[in-house]
Amino acid sequence: MVTILRGNIIHTPAFGKLETLAGGYLVLEDGVIAGVYPRLPEGYAACPVEDWGEKLILPSFADLHLHAPQYPMLGMGMDLPLLDWLNAYTFKTEERFADTDYARRVYRRLAEELVAGGTTRVAMFSSRHTDATLILMEELERAGVTGYVGKVNMDRNSGVAQETTEESIAETLRWLESCHFDHIKPMLTPRFTPSCTDELMAQLGRLAAERDLPVQSHLSENTGEIAWVKELHPDCGQYWETYRKYGLWKPGTLMAHCVYSDERERAAMAEAGVWAVHCAASNVNICSGTAPVRRMLEEGVPVALGSDIAGGDQLAMSQVVVTSIRASKVKAMETGEPFLTVPEAFYLGTAAGSRYFGGGEGFAPGHALHAIVVDEGVFPESTRELTLAERFERAVYLMDEYSIAAVYSEGRRVK
Amino acid sequence: MVTILRGNIIHTPAFGKLETLAGGYLVLEDGVIAGVYPRLPEGYAACPVEDWGEKLILPSFADLHLHAPQYPMLGMGMDLPLLDWLNAYTFKTEERFADTDYARRVYRRLAEELVAGGTTRVAMFSSRHTDATLILMEELERAGVTGYVGKVNMDRNSGVAQETTEESIAETLRWLESCHFDHIKPMLTPRFTPSCTDELMAQLGRLAAERDLPVQSHLSENTGEIAWVKELHPDCGQYWETYRKYGLWKPGTLMAHCVYSDERERAAMAEAGVWAVHCAASNVNICSGTAPVRRMLEEGVPVALGSDIAGGDQLAMSQVVVTSIRASKVKAMETGEPFLTVPEAFYLGTAAGSRYFGGGEGFAPGHALHAIVVDEGVFPESTRELTLAERFERAVYLMDEYSIAAVYSEGRRVK
Repeated sequence: MVTILRGNIIHTPAFGKLETLAGGYLVLEDGVIAGVYPRLPEGYAACPVEDWGEKLILPSFADLHLHAPQYPMLGMGMDLPLLDWLNAYTFKTEERFADTDYARRVYRRLAEELVAGGTTRVAMFSSRHTDATLILMEELERAGVTGYVGKVNMDRNSGVAQETTEESIAETLRWLESCHFDHIKPMLTPRFTPSCTDELMAQLGRLAAERDLPVQSHLSENTGEIAWVKELHPDCGQYWETYRKYGLWKPGTLMAHCVYSDERERAAMAEAGVWAVHCAASNVNICSGTAPVRRMLEEGVPVALGSDIAGGDQLAMSQVVVTSIRASKVKAMETGEPFLTVPEAFYLGTAAGSRYFGGGEGFAPGHALHAIVVDEGVFPESTRELTLAERFERAVYLMDEYSIAAVYSEGRRVK
Repeated sequence: MVTILRGNIIHTPAFGKLETLAGGYLVLEDGVIAGVYPRLPEGYAACPVEDWGEKLILPSFADLHLHAPQYPMLGMGMDLPLLDWLNAYTFKTEERFADTDYARRVYRRLAEELVAGGTTRVAMFSSRHTDATLILMEELERAGVTGYVGKVNMDRNSGVAQETTEESIAETLRWLESCHFDHIKPMLTPRFTPSCTDELMAQLGRLAAERDLPVQSHLSENTGEIAWVKELHPDCGQYWETYRKYGLWKPGTLMAHCVYSDERERAAMAEAGVWAVHCAASNVNICSGTAPVRRMLEEGVPVALGSDIAGGDQLAMSQVVVTSIRASKVKAMETGEPFLTVPEAFYLGTAAGSRYFGGGEGFAPGHALHAIVVDEGVFPESTRELTLAERFERAVYLMDEYSIAAVYSEGRRVK
C-alpha cells in the first residue's frame, strides 16, 4: 500500500546537517519510506496524496530515558538533591503502581500525552511491579509508541520500594515470559548500582547474555552517588566498571546522565558502544550538573536525549531539545566549547534515538516512517517570508501538543 | 460593588513566604481586595460568590522587560551573540512596525497572548515608531494589560532602525502628547547607551525630570557591550554611570539584565532604588551569562523578572519563572549560593512587579485584584492527596494558557 505525504519536509539526515524541501513528497510503501522527492515520480501519479499544504513535516521524537511511574509527580519536589529526592518522593510514588487500576489510568494518559507531543520512540523505566509494567507496555503499544520498557530491579537501598533478590529475579522472569508486544520490547533495568546487590547484578548480567536482552541504567549523575558507588565497589576504579563487572556494559546499553563521566569513562563508552542519554532539564532541576555533551560527541560516544521525567519536568521532547540547547550554552560559557545548534540538538532528540532502534537518520529510505506535522498557524505572524530553516528553528522552540497536527509512528498515523 | 471569589487561595505575601488557604474567600469591593478569609464574613452573606471549587487562585504575573516588536521573531535567530543578533535580526524586524496595519494585527495578538498566559502587568519596549507605539498601548489597554510602554529612542549605532536626534525627541514629544490611556502609561526608553548620543540622553534626562517620567533601559548584559560603553564614555567608571550622568538613574528606573553588574554597580542600584529585571532565558539563549540574582537580593537591589522576548523565547511568565529557577540552580552549582525556591521565583514573577507598580505583594488588601485561576484537570493524576504547597509548585511548572481558566486584571475579569 502506497501512502504519499506532501508538505514542507525538513529533517536532519546526519548530525549537524539540516535538509529542507518546500512542497516535497514523502512516499511510503507499507509504511516504509520509499523516498523523498521534490516532484512526485510518475509511477506514483495515480496514488492519493495526503496534502499537508504549508505545514512542516519533521521526524518525530525519541525519548531515551524516562520513568513512567514518576509521571504523577511531574513538576514537584525538585528542591532536593538526588539521593534525598529518591527517598522523600520517588520510591513512595513508584510504590503506588502496585495498584493495577491506578497504573492503567495513569499509563493510558501518559501514553496519550507522549504521542500528542510527538514522541514515538522510548526507552523507559517502569517500577518494580511486573503487572503494572505489562500494563504500561500495553498502553504504549495501543497509543502507537514503540521501543523498550524495563521492569526495574532494586534489592537494596530502595526504601519502601525494595524487593528481595529472589523476588526481583523471579518477577523479571515472569515479566519476560509475558512480553508479547509488536512494538514494545523488554529491556533489563537494574535501577543503578547502589540499589542492586552483586548477586542481582550478576544474575541480570547472565540473563542479558543468555537472552540477548538490552540494558539500561544510570551512570555518574552526581558526585555523592559516585562516591557511594566507590564505597560499594572498592575493586572498581570507576562507576562504569561496576556494570562491566557483571556483563551489563555492552553495545547498546543505555546509560542515563553521564554528567561526571571523565575522559576514561567516556572512552569506555565509545569503545563498548554504550550510549549516553543526556537529560538536561533533570540535571539542572536536581542540581546534578551539566553533562559534557559536545565532548562526548567528539570522542565518539553515542548520545541521545531523555526527558527523565520526573527529575525532568518536561515530557514534551521539543522542550527537552530546547532545554538541551540552553544547557549546552551554559557549558559553552563555562568552557568555550561550541554550543549545540538547533539542528544538532534536534538530531539528538530525533535521529539519534531512531538510529538506536535501528531506524534511519532523518527520512532515510528503507525505514518505517516516524514523523510529526507542525501547524504554524498559532505562531506569531512574521515580518517577512521565512526560510524553511528559520521556520524549523521556530517550530523547535514554539511547538506544543496543540500545534502538532499529526503524528506517524512505525508507518501509520497515530494522531 | 462586591465581588467574591472562592477557591484554593495561594500567594506569596513576602519574598520566600508562601501562604495557602483551602476553600477560602477573596472579597473585592469595586475590584479592590477587601480581604482574604477562611470563612465568608457575615456582612457579605447576601453577596453572590464566584465559586472556583477546587481550582487554584494565584496572583497574576508581571513581565517587566519585553520587546513587543520582537514578537514576530519569537524562537528564531538565537545562535548569534547580542550585538550581531541585533544587527542581523532585531533592527530589521522592528522596522516593519512603520506599517500601522501590521502593528495592529501583531500587537492585538501579542496582547491577547499575554492575558491568556496570565500576564497582567508589563514594562515594555516598543519600536522607535510613535504610531505603532500608540497602537500597542491601545491593544494592551483593550486586552486588560496594565503598566508601562516606551517608544524606543536610538540615534546612533542602530542600523536600519536609526533616528536622528531631532526626530527622536520630536517623536517622543508627539507620543507623550497622545498618551491618554487609563492603565497603560508612557515610560522613557533610551534603548541602551551605545544607541543613544550624549545629546539624546541629556534631553531624555531633562524630560524625565520635568515630567516625572519613569525610565527603562539595558545594563551590563554582556562583556562586549560593557567594553563598548567604556569606549564611548571614557569618563564613566562603570556602565551605570552613563545613565546617572544624564539623570536617567533614579528611583524606579528599570534596568534589564545586570548579568555583569559587580558589587559597586549593585550598590549603586540599591542606593538609588533602581530595579534589576532578570531575564534568565534570554541571558542563556544569546550566551550573555547568568545574573547574580541571589546576591542582588541580599544586597537590597530590587529584582523582578522579564521574558525579554525575543532574546527570550518564552512569553509565558510561568515558564520564565521556571527558567529563572533553573538559571539560579546553574548559578548555585557554580558558586554554592542558594538557588531560588519555587515560592521565591514566583514572588519575583508576580509580587515584585506588583510592588513596582505600587500594588501589593500577594493578595494584600487595599489593592486592585490581579489574579489567575488554574485548573489542574489536565495535570497527571497524583498518587495521593497533595498539599496546596505541592499543588502550587506543580502549577508553576506545568501551567500553560490552556490550564489558566480565568485572569483578573485591575479588579476585573479579562479572561
